[in-house]
Amino acid sequence: MRCLIKDLKENKASEIRGMVSKVRDTKYMVFVMIKDRSGFIQVSIDKNEQKDLLDKALSITTGSIVSFTGVMKLSEYVRQGGKEFIPEKIEIISLAETIPLEENANADTKQDYRWLDLRTPKNEFLFNIQSEFVKYMREYLYNNDFTEIHTPKLLGAASESGSSVFEVKYFDTKAYLAQSPQFYKQMAIASGIERVFEVAPAFRAENSNTNRHCTEFTSFDLEFAYIDSYKDVMKLEQELLTYALKNIKEEYGDIIKERYGIDVVVPTKDFPVIDLNDLLSELNKRYGYVIPEYDIGDMNAETEKLAYKFAMEEYNSEFIFVTGFSKEKRPFYHMRKDNIPEGFDLIWRGMEITSGSQREHRYDVLSAQAKEKGLGKDVEFYMQFFKYGCPPHGGFAIGVDRITMLLLGLDHIREAQFLFRGPNRLNP
Amino acid sequence: MRCLIKDLKENKASEIRGMVSKVRDTKYMVFVMIKDRSGFIQVSIDKNEQKDLLDKALSITTGSIVSFTGVMKLSEYVRQGGKEFIPEKIEIISLAETIPLEENANADTKQDYRWLDLRTPKNEFLFNIQSEFVKYMREYLYNNDFTEIHTPKLLGAASESGSSVFEVKYFDTKAYLAQSPQFYKQMAIASGIERVFEVAPAFRAENSNTNRHCTEFTSFDLEFAYIDSYKDVMKLEQELLTYALKNIKEEYGDIIKERYGIDVVVPTKDFPVIDLNDLLSELNKRYGYVIPEYDIGDMNAETEKLAYKFAMEEYNSEFIFVTGFSKEKRPFYHMRKDNIPEGFDLIWRGMEITSGSQREHRYDVLSAQAKEKGLGKDVEFYMQFFKYGCPPHGGFAIGVDRITMLLLGLDHIREAQFLFRGPNRLNP
Repeated sequence: MRCLIKDLKENKASEIRGMVSKVRDTKYMVFVMIKDRSGFIQVSIDKNEQKDLLDKALSITTGSIVSFTGVMKLSEYVRQGGKEFIPEKIEIISLAETIPLEENANADTKQDYRWLDLRTPKNEFLFNIQSEFVKYMREYLYNNDFTEIHTPKLLGAASESGSSVFEVKYFDTKAYLAQSPQFYKQMAIASGIERVFEVAPAFRAENSNTNRHCTEFTSFDLEFAYIDSYKDVMKLEQELLTYALKNIKEEYGDIIKERYGIDVVVPTKDFPVIDLNDLLSELNKRYGYVIPEYDIGDMNAETEKLAYKFAMEEYNSEFIFVTGFSKEKRPFYHMRKDNIPEGFDLIWRGMEITSGSQREHRYDVLSAQAKEKGLGKDVEFYMQFFKYGCPPHGGFAIGVDRITMLLLGLDHIREAQFLFRGPNRLNP
Repeated sequence: MRCLIKDLKENKASEIRGMVSKVRDTKYMVFVMIKDRSGFIQVSIDKNEQKDLLDKALSITTGSIVSFTGVMKLSEYVRQGGKEFIPEKIEIISLAETIPLEENANADTKQDYRWLDLRTPKNEFLFNIQSEFVKYMREYLYNNDFTEIHTPKLLGAASESGSSVFEVKYFDTKAYLAQSPQFYKQMAIASGIERVFEVAPAFRAENSNTNRHCTEFTSFDLEFAYIDSYKDVMKLEQELLTYALKNIKEEYGDIIKERYGIDVVVPTKDFPVIDLNDLLSELNKRYGYVIPEYDIGDMNAETEKLAYKFAMEEYNSEFIFVTGFSKEKRPFYHMRKDNIPEGFDLIWRGMEITSGSQREHRYDVLSAQAKEKGLGKDVEFYMQFFKYGCPPHGGFAIGVDRITMLLLGLDHIREAQFLFRGPNRLNP
């Protein structure tokens, strides 16, 4: 019977099993560091007193899976935790070959050996943290009457923007991979499900190699009905993120500080909201920033960075909502008022993590806006959703990978993904 | 301020908003049935006393989104719930065109208008139930130290079986859509995450048109390490399903009975386990069943149906585990003992809902089994996961759509999916 390391009792005969993170062969002792999902412990073998175990102990390699049967002792000589394990039986369950991944390997090699890269102290808790973050976001939504849906990723039409969509050979015809579940979230609203969310892969055939781009990512999408304005959407997002951050800080704040050197900051007041034009004039006044002409009406990576700087200086807030984008830069399905989209971006730590809006639910208005953007046949199926009764609604999406990257202060999105997918990366 | 229907207080001025399910124009009264996510209520307009509202009330169509401001009254004349709503103001938020979907429409038309089909009483709670079922399965796993992962669906190699995999145009090369996250769940185990699960789409390019096949479905996958045998995997699955069913029965048992005419049965004892050969001889003895030669060592749809019959008769159990499949019929990565795969199928209500097993984690054995199945280059990347230490592990997958179908007694998998995808169905 396996005993988890955290459950070991002093002097009680137990069996522990786990992965070896280090073996140290000293003059009188062999030390094996072993970890399981509950913690780690040093296993100490006395070369003189445990001669029968010596050969086996010395054959253990880093990464091997080992079972030790013995007792845990408290010891003032052991640095970490003051506990050590004295085995009387050793079983090597899976002997590891020499780990081919060096600590200073380049990013590509790390991806080649991603499963070994994930064993390093820095990455050890990465997916526990991500998993819990998503868990708490879901928990918030369940508590607020949201329903999880699973919408198809294989589409008959190239949906929102044909340029960056992957094409699939589908029997005798073609299909396309969903760039987002946007249209189907809205279909759910039209079908009478008032509040929906989905956590699923999204695909973008963009040949870009920046630190925030990838061809496949996990999108946390939600949509809810009977809103009065896009401000209800911002409010919900603020509450959702605050709820998740609060719980993550409690559970993983210390580990994140220790492994990533970064604080988890739980917002204590409303996120500031600023109109894009006001923001740009602030950035100009404060930092002499002038936005390039082709980005007018929108934000770019530089604006996002400076918006964060501004938010910290002015509001001591890591988050800032920006509103008032130009309709040319936003999708046709955003509702407009006085020709301005009723939507927002949310910037966190210098990067956009969300675009959200109230959606246009009036068939005739939506139809005109689609036409204005030159969209025809491909959105016809979607337009039907608004003919037979559809409540006002809005929503947004959060990239799970991007938020993980920002939470932990990682340099590149690939470090936040279980396996990165980019134009030149499809393996392992 | 919108008030949910369930929160209405007698005689208190309130606004309700929702979707109209029916309008009835009688001699003295107009009745409008309206529902929101919390419930439904009858709105009553007196033709003589509320003349000013009459035109508006009579213009309301089924499916329209309407706001009523007024008061709730208790009334002994109202059948359902004994409550009615007396409006003093009516606002039509979104007027529905005539619903083009007839009640007796064929399956294809229902799919064409899926969002209208989902408004019917039968489908009204479908995704609430599915969402909660998945929620409770996740909850069980979180409570047992599992970590959620998100593995890529775009693959560089055609993985398990090349025949039924979709091909994607990927910049200047080709990618393939994941049929399952099997290899990556195992990569997570090798990376030191002891217990993982994933809920994500899976893709099968199978040109079959049965009631249980589809080209895209939601797979609930899990894998966990340090098992002693595949029996640990069966035990966990039994506990997981029992936990979910218990919670679903409490929350939705009555609704499922009312809408689908089927009981939710919570298992009260261990699921029976039977060896395939023993099962077949029981089926022969009891029902005169003889399995066709090409299915020997495996089950087929007919065997599954009869296995259920047998399980009910012999054990009064809706579930039955079947073990002892032939290695020819199982994937190369199933561990074997005396040449028999250490795995199982789980049958529920006459259909296979899971294949599970202990996996082969020993590189040399795995390598030999891959070779035996004629697998070479495509699984090379996967083989690497087992070279640098990997604990014994096992797992299984449950189709979320299939389990929804069985839970509610639906006839076809497409009825359990938000949007069905089959060889001839990519829309809406």
